[in-house]
Amino acid sequence: MILTVTLNTALDVTYRVPRLLPHTSHRVSEVIERPGGKGVNVARVLAALGHEVTATGFAGGPVGEVLRSLLADSPGVTDALVRCSGTTRRTLAVVDSSTGDTTQFNEAGPFIEAVEWAEFLNGYNRLVRRARAVALCGSLPPGVPVGAYAVLVRTARTAGVPVLLDTSGEPLRRGVAARPEIIKPNAAELAELTGSRDPLPATRDARRRGAHAVVTSLGPDGLLAVTPEGTWQAAPPRTLAGNPTGAGDSAVAGLLSALAEGLDWPERLARAVALSAATVQAPAAGEFDPRTYEEMRGSVKVTQP
Amino acid sequence: MILTVTLNTALDVTYRVPRLLPHTSHRVSEVIERPGGKGVNVARVLAALGHEVTATGFAGGPVGEVLRSLLADSPGVTDALVRCSGTTRRTLAVVDSSTGDTTQFNEAGPFIEAVEWAEFLNGYNRLVRRARAVALCGSLPPGVPVGAYAVLVRTARTAGVPVLLDTSGEPLRRGVAARPEIIKPNAAELAELTGSRDPLPATRDARRRGAHAVVTSLGPDGLLAVTPEGTWQAAPPRTLAGNPTGAGDSAVAGLLSALAEGLDWPERLARAVALSAATVQAPAAGEFDPRTYEEMRGSVKVTQP
Repeated sequence: MILTVTLNTALDVTYRVPRLLPHTSHRVSEVIERPGGKGVNVARVLAALGHEVTATGFAGGPVGEVLRSLLADSPGVTDALVRCSGTTRRTLAVVDSSTGDTTQFNEAGPFIEAVEWAEFLNGYNRLVRRARAVALCGSLPPGVPVGAYAVLVRTARTAGVPVLLDTSGEPLRRGVAARPEIIKPNAAELAELTGSRDPLPATRDARRRGAHAVVTSLGPDGLLAVTPEGTWQAAPPRTLAGNPTGAGDSAVAGLLSALAEGLDWPERLARAVALSAATVQAPAAGEFDPRTYEEMRGSVKVTQP
Repeated sequence: MILTVTLNTALDVTYRVPRLLPHTSHRVSEVIERPGGKGVNVARVLAALGHEVTATGFAGGPVGEVLRSLLADSPGVTDALVRCSGTTRRTLAVVDSSTGDTTQFNEAGPFIEAVEWAEFLNGYNRLVRRARAVALCGSLPPGVPVGAYAVLVRTARTAGVPVLLDTSGEPLRRGVAARPEIIKPNAAELAELTGSRDPLPATRDARRRGAHAVVTSLGPDGLLAVTPEGTWQAAPPRTLAGNPTGAGDSAVAGLLSALAEGLDWPERLARAVALSAATVQAPAAGEFDPRTYEEMRGSVKVTQP
């Protein structure tokens, strides 16, 4: 089983409107709701790849109930979310049908009480022992200690389970110091961590801060990995137009699934890039276009820079 | 008891953002949720005025559950909503804190099945016999026959209960023909019904189409009423800046409560205008500023044009 942790889950709502005009009234022509938060997206992609997945984190209130019922409809994902007294946040993407542009609104997460955090830790400690790999994903909701990911990384390491950390800011800085197996920053997160905008030196710097391997997302140019086995760049054979939301989560799912299957770094990176590209072609985070994935898998270029 | 009917109830969500910039991402700094739909707003104002109120209509799905739990927290409103299999719509108002401007997104209502409409009619037929007055408010959700309000008006008339109809378009046109006690169009609704934009002739025309009395909202200029007892214009002593959302619903509550208390037309209009003005000073539909209401009550100017 692969365990994904999403402390700040979300109900991802998409509104389609004919045309967005600020300070006017709009009829919403389509409403879509999906279970969200980075780790939940990772879990859905892992399940679609045929992996057994357990999703933990927090869900609460009526929005949390909707999230859980949608997750129950996602085949292959076991719900191990911990109930919290606050209400799970929504994210709203308003899509302007005339241009395809998206305007995003993100609610704040619920406050997590100390007793709820303790309950989560208990469950995590049990689950992690049964896991082949762990993904720790996304932001921390209010109330969760800023060093939370460092604690979760250390627990996994003690259990001998490889852990991938995908977060930003101070939670990333503290989490890296606990020596996770992999971190997967994007360019902005890497610059915030290291102070450098030059991908290769910054990726190397991030690795010196504690991660065994650092996989930096270069957006449409693919991934750059600095690992104990070597340094690689993996690029898609062509740039695909589409919606980049969730591409990073699919890359995480690609890396983790390949790690769990015992594949080597070039194969892990090729899978992650192919899944990212296939996600850009899909309508929503947590989903990917299987045809694009199959087509891309064999043609990702993995080179040593 | 006063009965309010809201066939297309809504959960009214307000997002406050520091500044609305299309095609960017926003942190929502405040989320407010209120039970909504015109008749629900009317019910809340009636309850705040000390009237016993029953709210019926439809509510369904997780959003309907949130609406009902918020309604349960509204003192004095009895919930007689009928459960429907579809999900109650949300309305979203995005308030730009830098300008105070609002951008509105309205979801479509749930589809109402024939069996659900029949269940509603059964309940309405029972409730209307115990009512001193009835308010029929707002749009019709999909599935409800376009002549629905005409049926509800006739049932109330047969039971000898005065009925106020506040809707627009074809449901208004058909409803008026069933001879309700009062209709309360705004200028746009009146123009759509009569083809005239001249308030006094258009209000007289609307009355000839079947309503015993027509009370036309003139926005910040108050109300114009053509009734069997005479014709009046009621205007606030001064124009108040604020949020006009819900001012029409408060006018309906003012008219109905004064009718139920046996007040004459000038008193009904004075109360409706004072409540509207007090609603403009309040943060949300279904609420009013009690101090403004008390201050305005005695100073509304009711004249015969």
